[in-house]
Amino acid sequence: MRLKIKNVDFLHGEKGIKKGDICIENGRISACGNNNETQSFSAEKEIDGVNCLALPGLINCHTHAGMVYTRGFADDKPLMTWLEDYIWPLEGRLNSEDIYWGTLLAISEMLASGTTTFTDMYFAMDRAGKAVEESGIRAVLTWGLIGLQPGAEAQLKKTVDFARNWQGQADGRIKTMLAPHAPYTCPPSFMKKILEQAEKNDLPIHIHLAETRDEIDQLAREFEKSPIKWALDLGVFEHKTLAAHCVHLNDEDLDILKEKDVGVAYNPQSNMKLASGIAPIARLLEKGVRVGFGTDGPGSNNSLDMFTEMKAGALLQKVASKNSQNLPAGMVVKMGTAMGADILGLGSEIGSLQKGKKADIILLNLDKVHLTPVFDPLAHVVYSCRGNDVQTTIVDGTILYDKGEFYTIDVEKVKWEVRNRTARLSG
Amino acid sequence: MRLKIKNVDFLHGEKGIKKGDICIENGRISACGNNNETQSFSAEKEIDGVNCLALPGLINCHTHAGMVYTRGFADDKPLMTWLEDYIWPLEGRLNSEDIYWGTLLAISEMLASGTTTFTDMYFAMDRAGKAVEESGIRAVLTWGLIGLQPGAEAQLKKTVDFARNWQGQADGRIKTMLAPHAPYTCPPSFMKKILEQAEKNDLPIHIHLAETRDEIDQLAREFEKSPIKWALDLGVFEHKTLAAHCVHLNDEDLDILKEKDVGVAYNPQSNMKLASGIAPIARLLEKGVRVGFGTDGPGSNNSLDMFTEMKAGALLQKVASKNSQNLPAGMVVKMGTAMGADILGLGSEIGSLQKGKKADIILLNLDKVHLTPVFDPLAHVVYSCRGNDVQTTIVDGTILYDKGEFYTIDVEKVKWEVRNRTARLSG
Repeated sequence: MRLKIKNVDFLHGEKGIKKGDICIENGRISACGNNNETQSFSAEKEIDGVNCLALPGLINCHTHAGMVYTRGFADDKPLMTWLEDYIWPLEGRLNSEDIYWGTLLAISEMLASGTTTFTDMYFAMDRAGKAVEESGIRAVLTWGLIGLQPGAEAQLKKTVDFARNWQGQADGRIKTMLAPHAPYTCPPSFMKKILEQAEKNDLPIHIHLAETRDEIDQLAREFEKSPIKWALDLGVFEHKTLAAHCVHLNDEDLDILKEKDVGVAYNPQSNMKLASGIAPIARLLEKGVRVGFGTDGPGSNNSLDMFTEMKAGALLQKVASKNSQNLPAGMVVKMGTAMGADILGLGSEIGSLQKGKKADIILLNLDKVHLTPVFDPLAHVVYSCRGNDVQTTIVDGTILYDKGEFYTIDVEKVKWEVRNRTARLSG
Repeated sequence: MRLKIKNVDFLHGEKGIKKGDICIENGRISACGNNNETQSFSAEKEIDGVNCLALPGLINCHTHAGMVYTRGFADDKPLMTWLEDYIWPLEGRLNSEDIYWGTLLAISEMLASGTTTFTDMYFAMDRAGKAVEESGIRAVLTWGLIGLQPGAEAQLKKTVDFARNWQGQADGRIKTMLAPHAPYTCPPSFMKKILEQAEKNDLPIHIHLAETRDEIDQLAREFEKSPIKWALDLGVFEHKTLAAHCVHLNDEDLDILKEKDVGVAYNPQSNMKLASGIAPIARLLEKGVRVGFGTDGPGSNNSLDMFTEMKAGALLQKVASKNSQNLPAGMVVKMGTAMGADILGLGSEIGSLQKGKKADIILLNLDKVHLTPVFDPLAHVVYSCRGNDVQTTIVDGTILYDKGEFYTIDVEKVKWEVRNRTARLSG
């Protein structure tokens, strides 16, 4: 489909807001702005972009989509009570069809709030892959590995097979990584086996690191190391690594993350809700560490809306660092788009609106009372917009969501399935 | 109009969620639940409440509505640069018609996101009063007083006249207070004159207190006191007092606020965005101090959406106090409704859904992907809802907003006026 978005304000690369048309052909941006190419482009379908701001689709760098079944299930609890008494027992009852429907629900929420790529860590990821394939969204899928249980090696084999088989599936919209869950669930011997497979199959690593004070204390007791140093010494960072959380970091940790070019997924609302702590994101950025946003799972947030995540994350850094200039709006948008793409290894394909890139585009309708007046559109994106200000979501050049309508998902059926399954799971 | 909301889940007083009908007559709730009264009630208009949650309208305890003209005007700046180089020069150009249209825009935003009562501190408050009157919303209006300029006494006389004339106007929907801006703008001699007028006219006090570290330092230098002690010693707290911010408090301050039963307006997003600090709300609540939520003005937030305010405020307390159990969802909803009403002196009239109270009611449509599944509706209100999940807003028994339509405000004209005036103000 040759698609043209007409007369739209758009974020052009890192060059700021431009006005013009965006032309899309074969899933990519073939031209943008106001020039001979855009003028001569003959579209099969045109979208009126007046009053809209076009942005690269938002990139959620860390979530557990299948956890929609735990949204609002057990809030305001201490972390271990939440996990041990509520989340894990419910998760133990999840079957692979539950994961399929739950992931579809999460994808619906993400598309409707402007997320075009998400990074998932969960299980039954082949069924999550099916949901990604059918829905048209883009995803980095990682099957979580726990090394404490019997059968861990068989599980590793299964996730390696998954990572190999699904790499590049869904017309290239699926990318895979290996996902050791965390230092406290993956002993060094198991980690080494995972890293061997990562080496052999050229797979990046996605891992939770330095999320809670308990984790810091446990690793100090067992290894006399921080989680970051533990990962460094095991050789994790010899592979491309996406490290989720990174809340508790010492000065050496910051240096390691910079030197090893580790990508960090910042999950402010989950870290706040579970009282995990405040990640030193302003300091990481100052050092030049690459940081993207993640919503974490819907059980600990309880939302997949990247707009509220970006706002909360920016405001939290300002107050924690006592500096209102930290994480300015332009940087926050960059973290939610180009930098997020970069830490997923997708920086050359997505994350900005420019000729040749994949057409993952969202349109925000700015003609709203809560967005009036407009001085700086990027300030509105961060401080005033909510997920529902997204009018249109395009992935790979295909319209997936427009004005409340889902084009690839039977959302009434998905809600019905999730409600029915929730009754069984929580019963 | 005899109005009936049918088959709705509703928050019944402090008794939790009930199912039934809500009957409204002469602006008040005449019956609710499922009983002889609700069954025999003959309505002129019925609203289908299926899939909805009815809550008391949200109460924004501290804002500056007219500041919509500064929304997104100058973000990510140090506080004094923001004020001195951007906000004050623009505000100096505001005329009273700007205030009228700006307040109408802010009211539109608030109605559409479920706020039925707001507390305003700004100037040209008679024009703000006109906007409240026409729009049908409920408001506590306070005309800000600065004692540093010549003409302060004439200004005091004007605001006292305003407070007397507008008390109880708009069918009782308007309440007034006197509003000394802050300790650093109102010297003790001027404060004494304000308090004399408060005494004489039986008016409560609305004041910014202990917002920034600079204010703490300045009062320590000038008076060797904290702002709270300064206010106590001047006799401010002998009057009913609404204290906005209360970010920097020592132990004695906490005791004073409790003993004097001062109402605190917690403005988490503004305090974060301006890097003012984190108010010790969990400790205040533990002591039994009454706390409501405020959005502060649209220049320092940049939103009037009480849902994002409640979420950010709850999460911030959890992480700051390192306790995920602090500010649980039920308490947050109470702060946003009944406790907010109470600190405005309106607790007997609004803030909860029960027979005899004014019918200030909002309906949230929970049939959304991002609100699926539903375990605990109040957890959804705090952690998953956004302002736009509000389907219907009713104040004083009158529907003011329903499914995107404003019944009392020509919102296209209001946006047009604000945009035009913004061009002049920022030009």
